[in-house]
Amino acid sequence: MDISRLRVDGKRLRSSLEKMTEIGATPGGGVQRLALSDQDKQARDLFVQWLEEINLEWSTDEMGNIFGRRRGKKDDLPPVMSGSHIDSQPRGGRFDGILGVMGALEVLRTIHDRGVETERPIVIVDWTNEEGSRFAPAMVGSGVWAGKLERNWVYGRTDIQGKRFGEELARMGYQGELPARRWPVHAYYEYHIEQGPILEREGKTIGAPKGIVCLHWYDVYLEGTANQVGPTPMEGRNDALCAAAEMILKVNALPAKMGGHMVATVGEIQNEPNSRNIIPDRVHFTVDIRSWDDDLALRAWEDVRRDFESIARSRGCPIRIEETWRVEHASFDERLVKQVLNVAQMLGYSSHSMVSGAGHDASYMSQVAPTAMIFVPSIGGRSHVEVENTRWEDCEAGTNVLLHCILQSALEE
Amino acid sequence: MDISRLRVDGKRLRSSLEKMTEIGATPGGGVQRLALSDQDKQARDLFVQWLEEINLEWSTDEMGNIFGRRRGKKDDLPPVMSGSHIDSQPRGGRFDGILGVMGALEVLRTIHDRGVETERPIVIVDWTNEEGSRFAPAMVGSGVWAGKLERNWVYGRTDIQGKRFGEELARMGYQGELPARRWPVHAYYEYHIEQGPILEREGKTIGAPKGIVCLHWYDVYLEGTANQVGPTPMEGRNDALCAAAEMILKVNALPAKMGGHMVATVGEIQNEPNSRNIIPDRVHFTVDIRSWDDDLALRAWEDVRRDFESIARSRGCPIRIEETWRVEHASFDERLVKQVLNVAQMLGYSSHSMVSGAGHDASYMSQVAPTAMIFVPSIGGRSHVEVENTRWEDCEAGTNVLLHCILQSALEE
Repeated sequence: MDISRLRVDGKRLRSSLEKMTEIGATPGGGVQRLALSDQDKQARDLFVQWLEEINLEWSTDEMGNIFGRRRGKKDDLPPVMSGSHIDSQPRGGRFDGILGVMGALEVLRTIHDRGVETERPIVIVDWTNEEGSRFAPAMVGSGVWAGKLERNWVYGRTDIQGKRFGEELARMGYQGELPARRWPVHAYYEYHIEQGPILEREGKTIGAPKGIVCLHWYDVYLEGTANQVGPTPMEGRNDALCAAAEMILKVNALPAKMGGHMVATVGEIQNEPNSRNIIPDRVHFTVDIRSWDDDLALRAWEDVRRDFESIARSRGCPIRIEETWRVEHASFDERLVKQVLNVAQMLGYSSHSMVSGAGHDASYMSQVAPTAMIFVPSIGGRSHVEVENTRWEDCEAGTNVLLHCILQSALEE
Repeated sequence: MDISRLRVDGKRLRSSLEKMTEIGATPGGGVQRLALSDQDKQARDLFVQWLEEINLEWSTDEMGNIFGRRRGKKDDLPPVMSGSHIDSQPRGGRFDGILGVMGALEVLRTIHDRGVETERPIVIVDWTNEEGSRFAPAMVGSGVWAGKLERNWVYGRTDIQGKRFGEELARMGYQGELPARRWPVHAYYEYHIEQGPILEREGKTIGAPKGIVCLHWYDVYLEGTANQVGPTPMEGRNDALCAAAEMILKVNALPAKMGGHMVATVGEIQNEPNSRNIIPDRVHFTVDIRSWDDDLALRAWEDVRRDFESIARSRGCPIRIEETWRVEHASFDERLVKQVLNVAQMLGYSSHSMVSGAGHDASYMSQVAPTAMIFVPSIGGRSHVEVENTRWEDCEAGTNVLLHCILQSALEE
């Protein structure tokens, strides 16, 4: 058998994705499978049933990460690993995360059907709670496994109803005995939708990110002086919402000012007392800054922070700033990234070098193993929304790239 | 008895206000008695108990307005009427509205104690939902009574939880059989805190507004394109919150641009999905414009509306605007306003001619009856906040002015 002619079954891949879409389907055509929810459990049950159908030994660790293992000829060698996550955003899309799990499954089904033997074992993984939308922060399954987060701290995180991560994990029935502790991995591939418009704009099928941008989160709190709007002259007002509006525009203008493909966003705002005839006296908003260049992101923050302070002074609105979270940029393994591009070329798919603007489990994995990602286009660049979509032929193309990347790495001695 | 030497009991007035403060008291020293809430009902129960203690016949109409009536010698003559509202802002102050109700009550208690007989009947009133902060718009009790708003339309208004005004009114138990339809009124006086800084700044005790500025309320709805912030470049974003921020600053700059002591405010904003890593795709905010000059306010709106449309276009965020409410400026009755100033002088209080920047039930009343208001100073000009405050001696002074205005009008044949 000429292994280079092997291809995945695009119809079977689509059918598996569609079955997963039924679990937690939303009226708007998306899915809602929040981490550790009943929908997460139901999707996991189906996933492990499919693992068993191709004779994979599966296990789950104390973080609920699920690993399915296919033996290699030299079974003691560090395995090739691939996967992503089954959990979704609230009212999220049908592809984010699950495509990487179903893609790796389709790869293993293809290898199984053809009886391909590899030197190294291959491991498929579903990482617990990548989204972080029910239990913050994100990527905790891979984070604990990679030794970057502390298990008991994660167990203690609560959702909006006050339910604890640890208890919800036990309730769901996927809390294993196995310690969530990294083992040597020869290569880690994560297959994912792009979640941005670049591939579509460039007209390319396969994206090979060289890594993931850094991520800085800030929380800004402003105080104003509340007052009935009618009898309070404009002079002497301390309007916290006006101060916030000026700051939001400064954040929005930051990337153009700093250059370097940075993005900067205010996604969340709370205004108090939020009554149409009272001058706002308490505003909280968030700032999200991302860049491939950690220093540039820091300089941008220092720049906008000075603007914030001067706006706060001139509006008479005291400001408090929290530096909530900073993740440095993650560089993927150069050899593996090149391999993704080469495989795409070999298979006749157009490809594009890029960076990932979104965080992924691959971020933690890249700190402990050679790592690369494979992206396919998001229609309209939309993700984290119900209309998130990717063409079925692109899903198949990305899975074929994943197949040959895994095979090449698994055949290495 | 020399009626001109009659004075109210300042201690009793204070004690009644303090008992009302206990109903819906907030930790920050204010009150929260939202319209048609359990706290509104509790305060009404206490109010009607007090009405009964001085033998007033009370009734409630289909809008929940409560009227307490004291007979006159010529009981068929149109009555003198006075009152305000019991409902408050969320986390509001201890004086707004309730001072006018407790003030009128203290006047009637004083008249009752001394057995004063008046030619005309005197009616004390609590108007339903003056604030409009739970159910928009404001002043609906007096608005329907004055024939300016339609009862069933008001019944259908909903609060943020979707509860309907009509059902909440019935639930509270103050929906009477009496039609909410105006009857002839000889003179209407409303006693209120100023809610602005003018009297304090001028060092005067009594304010006599010549009327109320016009009030325009608008609701603006913006649509953007939600997306994961990381992978979505700045170019091509449709960020509804950035569009709103630009618009908020345009509103804030409007009074300086238009002149004429106008005020313009954005007090309320809702942002969706309000997640720190998703670009906002739905923003709603309010605009409040007030001026003594109705035309100037309209021209200002047309001006800022053009700005809104151009911002919406350049940000690629479709805009929808609702012209929610317009109340023209209200001119009070010249003779009654002069009477307030004269009474203040007779009682030895300093006084000041001014306009009211806040809306009041007196606005609708002035359209159907000779109307005047009596203001007392707000410390620091603060209102609609928990720290809202007025000196007790000023509360007493205003009530004495109210007493003699009511007496003079009620003695007129």
